[in-house]
Order: sequence, then C-alpha cells, then structure tokens
Amino acid sequence: MAAATRHSTLDFLLGATADCNAVLKALQPIFQEQGMTETVHNWEDHGYLATYIKKNGSFANLRIHPHGLVLVDLQSYNDHIKGREEVDQLLNKVEERMKELFHGNIKRVKRLPAILRGGVIDRYWPTADGRLVEYDIDEVVYDEDSPFQNIKILHSKQFGNILILSGDVNLAESDLAYTKAIMGSGKEDYTGKEVLILGGGDGGILYEIVKLKPKMVTMVEIDQMVIDGCKKYMRKTCGDVLDNLKGECYQVLIEDCIPVLKRYAKEGRMFDYVINDLTAVPISTSPEEDSTWEFLRLILDLSMKVLKQDGKYFTQGNCINLTDALTLYEEQLSRLYCPVEFSKETVCVPSYMELWVFYTIWKKQTDI
Amino acid sequence: MAAATRHSTLDFLLGATADCNAVLKALQPIFQEQGMTETVHNWEDHGYLATYIKKNGSFANLRIHPHGLVLVDLQSYNDHIKGREEVDQLLNKVEERMKELFHGNIKRVKRLPAILRGGVIDRYWPTADGRLVEYDIDEVVYDEDSPFQNIKILHSKQFGNILILSGDVNLAESDLAYTKAIMGSGKEDYTGKEVLILGGGDGGILYEIVKLKPKMVTMVEIDQMVIDGCKKYMRKTCGDVLDNLKGECYQVLIEDCIPVLKRYAKEGRMFDYVINDLTAVPISTSPEEDSTWEFLRLILDLSMKVLKQDGKYFTQGNCINLTDALTLYEEQLSRLYCPVEFSKETVCVPSYMELWVFYTIWKKQTDI
Repeated sequence: MAAATRHSTLDFLLGATADCNAVLKALQPIFQEQGMTETVHNWEDHGYLATYIKKNGSFANLRIHPHGLVLVDLQSYNDHIKGREEVDQLLNKVEERMKELFHGNIKRVKRLPAILRGGVIDRYWPTADGRLVEYDIDEVVYDEDSPFQNIKILHSKQFGNILILSGDVNLAESDLAYTKAIMGSGKEDYTGKEVLILGGGDGGILYEIVKLKPKMVTMVEIDQMVIDGCKKYMRKTCGDVLDNLKGECYQVLIEDCIPVLKRYAKEGRMFDYVINDLTAVPISTSPEEDSTWEFLRLILDLSMKVLKQDGKYFTQGNCINLTDALTLYEEQLSRLYCPVEFSKETVCVPSYMELWVFYTIWKKQTDI
Repeated sequence: MAAATRHSTLDFLLGATADCNAVLKALQPIFQEQGMTETVHNWEDHGYLATYIKKNGSFANLRIHPHGLVLVDLQSYNDHIKGREEVDQLLNKVEERMKELFHGNIKRVKRLPAILRGGVIDRYWPTADGRLVEYDIDEVVYDEDSPFQNIKILHSKQFGNILILSGDVNLAESDLAYTKAIMGSGKEDYTGKEVLILGGGDGGILYEIVKLKPKMVTMVEIDQMVIDGCKKYMRKTCGDVLDNLKGECYQVLIEDCIPVLKRYAKEGRMFDYVINDLTAVPISTSPEEDSTWEFLRLILDLSMKVLKQDGKYFTQGNCINLTDALTLYEEQLSRLYCPVEFSKETVCVPSYMELWVFYTIWKKQTDI
C-alpha cells in the first residue's frame, strides 16, 4: 500500500515584528541536527523561507514573516510510529527554542492535529458552509460509482456508517434526529395516511414511517445502487425495510421522481404527506429546467399538486449559516402556483457538524 | 493588522506509480507563468520537491511521490480577494493539467478548505479525540488569563458565543443539550430539593435549575473571571442568574470545591443532587492528590459523603471515542468508600462536534 503523507504544522503569532534572521539562526540547528539539508530564500520585504530536506523523503518549511508570524510545516510518511514521534520531538524543540527566543512575547502557539494526505481512507469531509472538519473514519465500507453519483459508505467510530453521495455527507446511522425532523418532529399522526417520499434511498424515513401504521407509503428513489448499499450497510437506519421493494403498506419505485409526480398529478392521486428527501444538488434523468432553483420550484409545484388541501410537505433546507441560500429558497415558496405558508426548525444532526434547517410547507387555507 | 497566511492544498492520489519527472515537467509551466522561481530537489528513491517562490511573499510546494501521490501546497497572504482568486485559478490549472496527464487514472483529487494560519481569530479547536475541526468563529468576544486558566469567549455564527477554557471547548449558547443532560435529561423533579453544583461557572445549570423551584442550590466555582465573562457574554446560557451571587433559592461560592466539600461533609450537610460540572482537566488551589484519577476519586468520595442515601450525582464523562478514559473512569467508581451504581447516556452537544457521554451515579441501596 502506498504510504500517506502526514502533514504537521506549528505556528507562532508573535507579539511584535520579528528579526527574521535571528529566528532563522535560532531554529536552523534543530533541523540540521536531524541531518536535513537547508535551502534559504530571502525576500527583501517578506522575510525568509527555509526548506529542509531529509534523506528519507520528508521535508520541512520554515516561513518567517517580518510582521511577526513564523510557520513551520513538516511532511513525512505516515508509515511508522517512530517517525511520528520524531516529528513531535522536532516540533517540541522548535517550540522550546522559540519560547526562549521571545520569552513571553508570543501571542499564540498553535499546533493543529496533523493532516493525513493521500491516505486510503479520506477523513476530511467539509461542511456545507465550507469548513474543514475531520471525521473519525476508520473504514471504507462501500465505494461505487452509480450512473448518477459516487456512493460512499464510510465507517465512523462514533456515528456508525455514514452515507456520502458525491462528497456530500447525507446521513449517518447516528442521525435519527434528521429523520425525525424531516417527518415533522413527532408532531404528526401518520396512522392511516398516504405518504410520498421523494428520494430517501437510505431508507430511514420509510423505516420510521412504516412503524407508524400508515395506509400506504410510496418512495421514489432514482438510484438503485444507493438502496443496494444502504440495505446492506445502513441497517441501523433502514432496518429491513429495503430488503423488499414492496411491503404491506409501502412500495419503492426506482424512478426519477419528476415523471412520477407528473403521472400522479395527472391521475389526481393525492397524499397527506409529501416528504422531499432529495439531495441538495438535484439529480434528474430528464432535467427540463435551467437552474437549480427552477428545478426545486418544479418539484415544489408538482408536489403541491399531489398534496391534499390539508396535507403537509416536509423537506430539509440547508446549513443554518447559508442564509442567502435559505432566503432564496423561501423566495421560491412565494412563486408557486398556489399560495403556501411555511415554518422552519433548526436541528442538530450529529454527523453534520453544523446546524441544519428543516421546512414544513402547507397550502394556505382560504376562508371562503 | 498583520496579515494571516492562507494555506491551500491540492492532493492527487494516482491509480499507479508516477513518472515523477513527467509530472514535474507538466506542472512546472503553470507556476512559472505566475512569475514564480523554481528550486527542485530530487531524491533518488523518493521523488521530487519543487518549491516555487513569488515576489509578493507567497510560495508553493509541489511534492511528487513515486508511489503515486502528488501534493501541492500554496501559502499566500490572506489580505485580498484577488489573491485568493489567483490561488484558486492556479490550483484549477494544476488540476486540469493533472487530469490531462493521467486521463482517468486518478483515484482521488482532494482540495481541502484553505487553512487560515496566524489570523487574529483562531477558528481551529480540535475535538477531545484529537480531530481537526474548523469553527465558524467570526469574533473574539473575551480573552483573558485568570489565575487558573485562559478564558476565551468566541462568537460562532451558528452556535452563538462559545466558552473556551485553556483551549478546551466548554459550552456554547446553543448547548442546552449539555445542561439538560447533566441535570438528568428531564427525568428529575428538582422542586424543593437541595442541590450542589461543582464548577458550572457558565451559569447554565444554575439558571435551568432555579426555574424548577428547588429549595436551595449552592454552586461552588473557583474562578470569578469565568463568571464575570459569562454573565456578560453567555446570557443565552445563564440569563440573569449570575448578576448576583445570591438569590432567593441559590448562592454562588467563589471557592475551590474541595475544602467546601470537606466542610460540608464534616458538618453533615446533605444534598439531593450533586452535579459535577468541573472541567475535564482538574483545577484546584490545593491539589493533595498525585494524579488526575486520584483527584477525580477524591471529588467523588467527598461528593458521596454529602449525597443523601437516595440522592443522585450527575457528571459529564468524555468524548464517546475515548473509550480507555471512560473505562478508567468507571473503574474509579468501583473504588469509592461506598458502593455505587451508575448509568450513562450519550448526547449530541451541538458545538462539540463529537458525541459526549454523561454519567448518573447513585449509592447502592442495601436490602437490609
């Protein structure tokens, strides 16, 4: 197996401008004692970059900024513990030397957890609002490309298996909070009701609703491979509900939901609940609309057409920090063929590492 | 203000071993077009490191590993958007060129969110299990050193203000889930009860219990400055309860809890509930015990002495992934002066980015 790289960093934010040459002279010996070969670049106005190269393929950068910032980077192979200890010792020495040199005048010393680069297991799955987060992934359980998307199921120590669709964290086995929220947070009575689920290939919603004795649940999922992966590896989420595409009170259609919605609308088929669990980025075999927003509006309009007058439409919105996207979504709601009202709720979904907004939408009741 | 550094990365995990020289020759022009000066180091067995230096103080590393890993690093000043766009364009070009060169034979292309190094606002607060996570911090609200610890209150867009004690994320305004869990998850009746809180300087527990009409709550917090910071900046957590150290049914003692517990034990003062909300790393003005575990056991023993026979002791445990620490903690419980039983619960505390274990401990009831 090819060795991954372990990238360690150590940063010093100084209390004042730095004598770059003094810093270089103080730290130089630490790297040289390791048998590392030095190359120094000296900018006139921007301080120093010293590069230290070791025979075993590892190297370090020492970047000294005159305004008072010293950054150390070290890249080494992640293949043995001894190497990691050596890196820690080297960074410890750098830290000691810097503290001697500047006495109390260091505002911040920061050593981030080392970043693993090029490993077989990718532990870094940024949040929807673009932040860097490392997951406790220890196993790649499933990794396949379907005709629609890349499907990964990765095992997290604390969250259980996590479904990741085209790089987007969808749902972990720990995330019953997501399923509960998109079902109306326990405030709905599903007994004897007609329910339509758009997407939902992980089976979580279907599994939870079937427990509540609905009349019939129809789930429309485009990607058979998502179902195949989840029924095998996300059983805490879907139980046995995906083992068959048909049960006493449910059916799963492997289809694009747009034509299905159109068919139902034409037939006059109506539902008490429509639950939109499609991925944030739309997937359709027949995209007729230009933009994401128009696509979302198409889904919403069609869904309203098959929703009973007193029915409810549930969907996930977005990360609470993406206020522009949430506002745009709410604007779409005022542009549907029929007037609707909505409420929203913010929920902490364990594996998301960010708070998530869920919407409830219903047809505005006219007093006539 | 001194400019922070923006550290961008772009990694290619190839499907096979790499012709290092071919990669270098293909990517070289992209950096040189930017007016960057090249220095190349060639290991015999470990591939290449090319360093590209720009006049404006930014630089790039291109590390080509013969086993099929190509890592690009770019450090530049974070002071203007144009610079960031230039970095993105450069990395886009590298990605395009690599895809041309290797056609379909790249297993993974990974571009992490850029890391901000040396900024005034530090957004990186690792989890208890040592993972790298970036918070959406946009303001340093409070930053002081008390005689006991460094106290930071940082503002997060989604979590509200976050209390960080000596680098350890303690509690955010979003974290009512923590307070509820350490109060017994809504299953207790605090009406007319005697309650002792150890630590709890953020005021969250005190604020929530006082609402429940207890007879008397005594909170023992060692650090006045935590209280001062929280009563000003964590008001969603503590309300007005810290504005006075004494209320109708509560008192706050600014003291080390060890001598207080000893005093109460001597006086025979007993409580219905003892809630240990001390920081994970013990702070005491009079540490008499050698190790952390002995200190924890001392607290536990003293707490059991002041706990009524049918009383309950609540405390936070640790991150669910730190199984060794949790096991060691549970071993301490079997070594107290009196036999106890315990249960535990795992809770998702929004700002923690990891699942957290809470303990309920009670005296074993003898059947005599």
